[in-house]
Amino acid sequence: MDQNREKIMELATRLYDLDAEVYRCLGSSLGRVYTGRRDDCIESLAALMSGGRQTYMLRSELALVGNMARTIPDKASYVRVMAQYDQILKEIQALPDTFGKVDIVDKDRVQLNWIDLKNRFSENDHLIICIGRTQGCAGTDIGFALADALKINFYDTEIFSSVRKRLESEQDNAPDSIGSDVYPFLNPNPPQGHPTLPQLMANFNRYHGLLREDAVFFNESDLICNMAKKEDFVVMGRCADVVLANNRIPHISVFITAPFELRVQRIMETHGLDRKRASRLLRQLDRRRSSYYHFYTGRKWGDPVNYDLCLNSACYGIEKSVELIARMINQQIDPPAQA
Amino acid sequence: MDQNREKIMELATRLYDLDAEVYRCLGSSLGRVYTGRRDDCIESLAALMSGGRQTYMLRSELALVGNMARTIPDKASYVRVMAQYDQILKEIQALPDTFGKVDIVDKDRVQLNWIDLKNRFSENDHLIICIGRTQGCAGTDIGFALADALKINFYDTEIFSSVRKRLESEQDNAPDSIGSDVYPFLNPNPPQGHPTLPQLMANFNRYHGLLREDAVFFNESDLICNMAKKEDFVVMGRCADVVLANNRIPHISVFITAPFELRVQRIMETHGLDRKRASRLLRQLDRRRSSYYHFYTGRKWGDPVNYDLCLNSACYGIEKSVELIARMINQQIDPPAQA
Repeated sequence: MDQNREKIMELATRLYDLDAEVYRCLGSSLGRVYTGRRDDCIESLAALMSGGRQTYMLRSELALVGNMARTIPDKASYVRVMAQYDQILKEIQALPDTFGKVDIVDKDRVQLNWIDLKNRFSENDHLIICIGRTQGCAGTDIGFALADALKINFYDTEIFSSVRKRLESEQDNAPDSIGSDVYPFLNPNPPQGHPTLPQLMANFNRYHGLLREDAVFFNESDLICNMAKKEDFVVMGRCADVVLANNRIPHISVFITAPFELRVQRIMETHGLDRKRASRLLRQLDRRRSSYYHFYTGRKWGDPVNYDLCLNSACYGIEKSVELIARMINQQIDPPAQA
Repeated sequence: MDQNREKIMELATRLYDLDAEVYRCLGSSLGRVYTGRRDDCIESLAALMSGGRQTYMLRSELALVGNMARTIPDKASYVRVMAQYDQILKEIQALPDTFGKVDIVDKDRVQLNWIDLKNRFSENDHLIICIGRTQGCAGTDIGFALADALKINFYDTEIFSSVRKRLESEQDNAPDSIGSDVYPFLNPNPPQGHPTLPQLMANFNRYHGLLREDAVFFNESDLICNMAKKEDFVVMGRCADVVLANNRIPHISVFITAPFELRVQRIMETHGLDRKRASRLLRQLDRRRSSYYHFYTGRKWGDPVNYDLCLNSACYGIEKSVELIARMINQQIDPPAQA
């Protein structure tokens, strides 16, 4: 403790003197953060450095000294003072009870954070990007373009449901004994590499006791987890982020949205609707997605705390949003081809 | 129109044939997207390519063909098929009425988006990062660390208010005639580079007819806009994002939050409170920020549509959040020093 107190007094003194030095370089009393009696200032600085609720004040004062120091016009003085500032900051941050010491981390989530995993394990985990989005924000366009740019698979609602429909109709028409020539996944040693989506879907068609919607949800959830062990992909909606987290499978979750008025305008254009109908459609589809998400996850759809990141696509447009997401997850993509 | 129809029929035929080719390579009927009569399939594909509300189906079908193609085990076939797929996709995207043609862009906002500006004008604009945050999510720690990593100034509430308090007390004690030796900004040719925050603040101390809180808000808003023309900085709260947008000054706006329970835990630790008091404090401070933002902007605080990006700090922790934001805005930072 005594040793710590000594260190703190030393740091407080150095910071006080640095402030005086900045003042000297700037030649204005307004450039000075600590204007009281030297001993008093050092004592209260030391108190701030000793921890407690007020350490955020220390951070602000440090920032103020640093901000002032950055305005020093003389180059040599600037470099000297900033070096001292950086050193003092570093030593203060190394104190046991200073600001920034208590991190905010959801340990479970961080363990499943693909961006971080990549640094740790390199190629061991698959890149899975879960995208939730409001209607009309071009989220699906962004997801498709992102998958294309990253050269990975893309799954949206239509893909899941069209494959499901086909499987159901094939099963209705199929003879009782289905041979492994038609459904290769029934063959214990399939000739090819990894199975395709329809093969997997046929395999995961269970949960017969449930309501159709629930059965579909649980089938798709199983499917998403299974695919996640085998390939990289972008998946739109389906609460995939929560499903993967519950199954402890690393991924990235992104929510895309845009201001309502802009989404209405876009729906008017893509669907050829007037404003009133476009607004109604938008609200209806948003409500449907919101209750789907809430029903299966118990969480609030579109609330930033439920995703790694939220993106306002109206600030970027489709192409730049793709670039931004790729940059966030540290992936190189080719510049978009000019068709 | 006829020429367009011809092109569409050609593309539809090529896509149908590519699907058949993928099927041949995979040797499974499940690998096939188009299973009906050849002419019928091509006709409905052509209809999808001609535009209208259903073009999103075309995108899903393309993705399905692409996903299937990526499972082709034979390397040479894979490369050949994927090249054809990429080419067809490119040509479909060049059609006038296909999916992804209607972008989602807030033209005003995009013009003020610093990330984009940087590509256009390089060094002409200052890097201003506005950070909103809920209480306890370590947002201020992230902002401070980000400013430090980018070597730019940092402004938070405490800095603004401590400088304001000092100015007020100095003005109370000051003689009536304030000389330019004490307040150098009164000197029309100040000797130094750009003015420091207290100099600027003294300069912007107007709006005397308003309530104190409003006067403070408008003074700070003027100040932020003025600083934004002169320097790079990180600013916490103060509705700076909206203030800058209203004044057409480029910037980046980020909102940082984390799940309530994790924020409570962190506040318990940083403030030495029990759970009940920590929760109450959190709700109180969140409510205060929320009504402040709503009062001065008319917008909903923390709603992703009001920011460029939202970040869940619990998914990353302080250090990784700083890295992530720096990466998003395409800025190099030094790896954090081990103190």
